[in-house]
Amino acid sequence: MTSDKSEKQSARRAFRKDHRWDRVELHPYKDDGRAIFKDVTRQTLVSRPDIAGELRYFEVGPGGHSTLERHQHVHGVLILRGSGQALVGDEVMELQTNDLVTVPPMTWHQFRATEGEPLGFLCMVDAVRDKPQLPEPADLEQLRRNKQIARFLERK
Amino acid sequence: MTSDKSEKQSARRAFRKDHRWDRVELHPYKDDGRAIFKDVTRQTLVSRPDIAGELRYFEVGPGGHSTLERHQHVHGVLILRGSGQALVGDEVMELQTNDLVTVPPMTWHQFRATEGEPLGFLCMVDAVRDKPQLPEPADLEQLRRNKQIARFLERK
Repeated sequence: MTSDKSEKQSARRAFRKDHRWDRVELHPYKDDGRAIFKDVTRQTLVSRPDIAGELRYFEVGPGGHSTLERHQHVHGVLILRGSGQALVGDEVMELQTNDLVTVPPMTWHQFRATEGEPLGFLCMVDAVRDKPQLPEPADLEQLRRNKQIARFLERK
Repeated sequence: MTSDKSEKQSARRAFRKDHRWDRVELHPYKDDGRAIFKDVTRQTLVSRPDIAGELRYFEVGPGGHSTLERHQHVHGVLILRGSGQALVGDEVMELQTNDLVTVPPMTWHQFRATEGEPLGFLCMVDAVRDKPQLPEPADLEQLRRNKQIARFLERK
């Protein structure tokens, strides 16, 4: 069912197989050799000049992980697909589909997919936001003093 | 797996059965006799002073519908559960789980669940936003000139 004005783009973007959407571009993150992330794609679902928030969908392949980073801007996350683990600050957490995760300002965070399936999550951010910071060796040393975090970071 | 600091609230809010989340309040919309909506609940998933966007989850019971309204602020919607129909401007659309819907400024819109199951959707908005406007009789008359819209609005 569509409008008579067939030239106009629909307000609906249909969900397709493999967690893709109509008229949404897929951005694979290319590994630059530093191995700071593994097997991650991004799709920007909502980004417009007339709304302050952006909604993105990230997918981490089986056994993959996002970049360990921190920044001033806040992440509001909802797991849309699969399961995995996350580090948020000093907390290592198990994640199941539909769980919510909030990443407060300047909090180290990383998402990891389980071995068997991808981990897909929605992430709401402000369109105007600061750039992520990567950990310095001293930050990593500090994080690894917590044995649970050390195990999380060392997972292959 | 949780942090040692058990007093601190987790950054994770777990998904529970019946599309509820830990530490998220359920707000049923009470029918005030005008029948402008039918069987709608709201849960605010992300709302913080340090992020400009808000993420809410609305659930429309089987056969129910949201309020027909318009406003300056934009909605970014993702269907999280079930199926249904929506009116956005002059477009009546079928909705399946995970479909995206964008509601532009000052665009009449309404969501309706199918008879057999609830329709649950995420809705991203700006935290600072204008109040919705309800249709005047002249607006309804204008909308109903489109027969597809008339059928959508008259659905019981």
